[in-house]
Amino acid sequence: MKSQSFSKHIELNKIKITDPFWLSKTELVRKEVIPYQYEALHDRIDGADKSYAIENFAKASKTAEALKKGETVPVYPADKWCYDDNNAHPDAFHGWVFQDSDVYKWLEAVAYSLSNQPDSELEEKADKIIDLVCSAQLENGYLDTLYIINNRDEVFSNLQDYHELYCFGHLAEAAVAYYEATGKRKLLNAACRFADLICNTFGEDKIKGYGGHEIAEMALVKLFDITDKTEYLKTAEFFINERGKKPYYYDVVRGRKTVNDNYHYNQAHCEPRNQHEAVGHAVRGVYLYSGMADVAKRCGDDGLYSACKNIAENIINKKMYITGGIGSTADGEAFSFDYDLPNDLAYAETCASIGFIFFARRMLEIEPNAAIASAAERALYNTVLSGMAADGKSFFYANPLEVLPEASHKDSRKRHAKPIRQKWFGCACCPPNLARLISSIGEYCFTENSDTLFIHQYIGCKAQTENAQIKIISSYAENGKVEIEITPRKKIILAIRIPDWCNSFSVDLPYVIKNGYAYFEISKKTILRAEFEMKPKLIKCSNLVRENAGKVAVMRGPFVYCAEEADNGKNLQLLRISKNTAFVCDGNALIADGFREKEDSSLYSEWSEAEETDVKIKLIPYYQWGNRGENEMSVYIRI
Amino acid sequence: MKSQSFSKHIELNKIKITDPFWLSKTELVRKEVIPYQYEALHDRIDGADKSYAIENFAKASKTAEALKKGETVPVYPADKWCYDDNNAHPDAFHGWVFQDSDVYKWLEAVAYSLSNQPDSELEEKADKIIDLVCSAQLENGYLDTLYIINNRDEVFSNLQDYHELYCFGHLAEAAVAYYEATGKRKLLNAACRFADLICNTFGEDKIKGYGGHEIAEMALVKLFDITDKTEYLKTAEFFINERGKKPYYYDVVRGRKTVNDNYHYNQAHCEPRNQHEAVGHAVRGVYLYSGMADVAKRCGDDGLYSACKNIAENIINKKMYITGGIGSTADGEAFSFDYDLPNDLAYAETCASIGFIFFARRMLEIEPNAAIASAAERALYNTVLSGMAADGKSFFYANPLEVLPEASHKDSRKRHAKPIRQKWFGCACCPPNLARLISSIGEYCFTENSDTLFIHQYIGCKAQTENAQIKIISSYAENGKVEIEITPRKKIILAIRIPDWCNSFSVDLPYVIKNGYAYFEISKKTILRAEFEMKPKLIKCSNLVRENAGKVAVMRGPFVYCAEEADNGKNLQLLRISKNTAFVCDGNALIADGFREKEDSSLYSEWSEAEETDVKIKLIPYYQWGNRGENEMSVYIRI
Repeated sequence: MKSQSFSKHIELNKIKITDPFWLSKTELVRKEVIPYQYEALHDRIDGADKSYAIENFAKASKTAEALKKGETVPVYPADKWCYDDNNAHPDAFHGWVFQDSDVYKWLEAVAYSLSNQPDSELEEKADKIIDLVCSAQLENGYLDTLYIINNRDEVFSNLQDYHELYCFGHLAEAAVAYYEATGKRKLLNAACRFADLICNTFGEDKIKGYGGHEIAEMALVKLFDITDKTEYLKTAEFFINERGKKPYYYDVVRGRKTVNDNYHYNQAHCEPRNQHEAVGHAVRGVYLYSGMADVAKRCGDDGLYSACKNIAENIINKKMYITGGIGSTADGEAFSFDYDLPNDLAYAETCASIGFIFFARRMLEIEPNAAIASAAERALYNTVLSGMAADGKSFFYANPLEVLPEASHKDSRKRHAKPIRQKWFGCACCPPNLARLISSIGEYCFTENSDTLFIHQYIGCKAQTENAQIKIISSYAENGKVEIEITPRKKIILAIRIPDWCNSFSVDLPYVIKNGYAYFEISKKTILRAEFEMKPKLIKCSNLVRENAGKVAVMRGPFVYCAEEADNGKNLQLLRISKNTAFVCDGNALIADGFREKEDSSLYSEWSEAEETDVKIKLIPYYQWGNRGENEMSVYIRI
Repeated sequence: MKSQSFSKHIELNKIKITDPFWLSKTELVRKEVIPYQYEALHDRIDGADKSYAIENFAKASKTAEALKKGETVPVYPADKWCYDDNNAHPDAFHGWVFQDSDVYKWLEAVAYSLSNQPDSELEEKADKIIDLVCSAQLENGYLDTLYIINNRDEVFSNLQDYHELYCFGHLAEAAVAYYEATGKRKLLNAACRFADLICNTFGEDKIKGYGGHEIAEMALVKLFDITDKTEYLKTAEFFINERGKKPYYYDVVRGRKTVNDNYHYNQAHCEPRNQHEAVGHAVRGVYLYSGMADVAKRCGDDGLYSACKNIAENIINKKMYITGGIGSTADGEAFSFDYDLPNDLAYAETCASIGFIFFARRMLEIEPNAAIASAAERALYNTVLSGMAADGKSFFYANPLEVLPEASHKDSRKRHAKPIRQKWFGCACCPPNLARLISSIGEYCFTENSDTLFIHQYIGCKAQTENAQIKIISSYAENGKVEIEITPRKKIILAIRIPDWCNSFSVDLPYVIKNGYAYFEISKKTILRAEFEMKPKLIKCSNLVRENAGKVAVMRGPFVYCAEEADNGKNLQLLRISKNTAFVCDGNALIADGFREKEDSSLYSEWSEAEETDVKIKLIPYYQWGNRGENEMSVYIRI
């Protein structure tokens, strides 16, 4: 790890998105998703699962107030991971143990949105929620409504399953975002007070625990970056180094070993620096790996970085769907074994791809790596965008590559593979996570260091960086063309990623290629025009992925395509794409040449060459599937 | 339904199996399976899950004795479907609620085995167990150890989930078999006393319930056939007619509706005569359908028979694996929707195929139907035989068509798809069911009526039927050849099934073909030589079964073949079989021409024609797979 290659992303308030493709998404989030979620957090959506999130803060606020006055407050059981309406006392905490985090994710999305597009009414709503959140904080800085409402004596007693450190992490991320967007410190102060309590509670000579759902690691680093308080970085490092040490902290607390002596689900099966394969709950995994990369960079920890590199390679080369989806099994929402990437059973949670993008950005800040940036791009343009309906009003949690609605309805193993997006979820992690990623998309475009400006993702924008003023006019998503106008503040290097999907590209300036990036010397205002060849391509999957043998997917640029029943009729397995197909563009759909086998309902018969007719196969971008009602969908097609 | 086409199977004591292929199986059952199960029922197998079955009868016997003496006996909770060792009182019932049935299935297998091969030592053991069983019967005839031991007041209080009527059914089947094999009536008397109690308890003006796990229906018909007591037939008919009527009996008893108002699992979603699709728990299904066919025949009930025919067609044409496996989903061990026949997720319980064979025999007794007999044959030679290891010492419960050991170990959705047979199961239905089917295999060969003798399955044997003396010398399983020596008692018709797998056949006598059977007039002692062409064939599966598009299976005669890793290396998905392959026999293995793709570990790349090398693909009969340690297996291969 060479610190001279370190770079930093550009802060959001220095970037103005102008890209029509992405503006339409950020506006959808601002106009549809954020207001909808605001109502959902307040339990004002008819027919949706109740959130209880705001209600919990209101209850916690009352408790905090009473405690300040020295009043005695009731105690409720705090040992149920999920409270069911009927059993909990009306005055007790309701909802999932991590319910607070939905409020924080909403605030974070609002912060990013305000950076892009000031909106005083929205800011006022956010300020009120921040007031409520802060009023629930205990005098010692503790802030998690489950324990504040139900039992103050049991805080930090079940780090494995109860999400206090997770909620803290989302609080800190929201606080940093809100401070950067608005300059307001109230939530940041609250986050720092809670962080101080955490730093005083956990450490070498203190409690040697760590969160079951990681995020506190990267959140503490964000606070460190803003405040320069080394205690925050040290505690992040402590959480990472302590994780997976034997005897397991969770076993010690519980007084017995877990079944099979196994904490893979929590990535706590061994010390993170000794982990070289992505395992366990995928979102937890990528959140941990993000924190590991943060700490590795700031502490110059080569061993930790080496683990990060191996894990990133393992994900990209053996555990990632072509759509950038990760965590292939619904069983624990987890990474499965190498090359186990079933299409119809795929879990591929939207949040996991979002988390991979977090991880990728941090890795790119350590050193440019086109393979990682390209994988993040695939995740972004496919699984992440797929998470949200065209109208911003419904969401996918899981993102399978093949869906038969009948199977989703009737087969419990495929029940997670919804044939249509849903309005809201009881466990509502994906919609707010989508909102915060899309609203902060600018953060993923660039990184820079003292002499080099890197472009990792091509999104039309104007940005003020330390090295240059930059303006990007992009029709990248449409035709692979980008115009980059750069006005350097001194002689600098511009490095632009060459997408892994283009066979050829042209730029109108001399360059040198290194690690998948083209490097240019820029000493004066320059306009650079790049065009990445964006031909539709047949892509094969490794034949170690069993079910894709004999099949292909179609990609054009960063987009993976899929066939839908709405365009191609039922029984998509009857289609074969011609290996010599020409592709014709039809809007952003593609028309390919192919064949359709005649349906043969006879269950078993002596083999004979199938009767086929020539057909045109219509393919649409994967992220657009499921916007026309329930229907079959398949990414892979026989060749 | 024409009663003149009705026929009856030949009783086991009139048949002597001489077929070397089948004798080796029946001897394995007699020498290995039955003694092993005897030990298992007595909890004398180290490392196996405890059965508790004999222990429960001993406890029940003590209770029955005490009750006779008017002593008060303790009450234990009888509301747990499965008793876990640690929680149950040591004197209470232990094991699953259906544990008694394992004893009955063992007795039934012993009875059949004694018919084939007298064994006084074994008969003595069986007599002792029968003494124990009968000593547990209450004075009113009730006989189910769970309620006898735990709570006499709660008998018949949970017909849906507690298996009293199921255990009764197995008792009756064992009793009839033991009576027919030995002439001893003790167990039969006990079964009739329990049957009398059931007939007095359930009916139009009595309790209007029915069993959640069907079998009592066909068992009562067996008792009726032996005793001629019409009450038994009437109660069987009542159970069938009452099933699925609304309001649901189970809802009424419980005082609330089931979730989704749905009793598909128990085939009680509507009245059986209105059922035309096989649904729910597959074993329960085929046991019900068997009882329906029994009742339809004896009551001349055309409506019920029509339902049976539709259900049989639905199974054979849309819900049966090529191996004769049924019940494709582990979710409820159930039938899935039409054409949902996944290879790797397949459940295909051994017991379900056994139950299908029961159903098929009853359908063939109503009218000959080569499609049903052929499907039963496929089940018999593939999924049923696959259930037992070559040494008779371990068993498959589930019979998937594709196994990757890593997936079985790591993927919870495939955990049922064991890569190797197991010694014994806590829920030990399959091994004793296998034992009773294989020991009674002779019962499935013939049916006859006053003028026609049907041969449905070709198994070498000598038999005395009402119409003829018959001697079959068969090498059917090896080469499709059968020699039938028939000495008629009068001028009769012989009808032999033409297997659905042969493209041509030859017989040395004139015949007429009807419904897939060849009919011969026999007026004197005749030797008929038939040869069914038994070439290996490539078989395609309907392209409505999604995952088999572009693949084939190989069959030779009734045997389905599969590729194993032991012969073909890892990654069986890399194999493609040549569509013009010649097949070479190697013992009972087949060698086919094919190709093997070069492994390509690169996860995604631009499509190009795969590099392949010519290989010989070795295929073994499906039933023999998994006898050489854990390894990959696949029935379907790409073409």
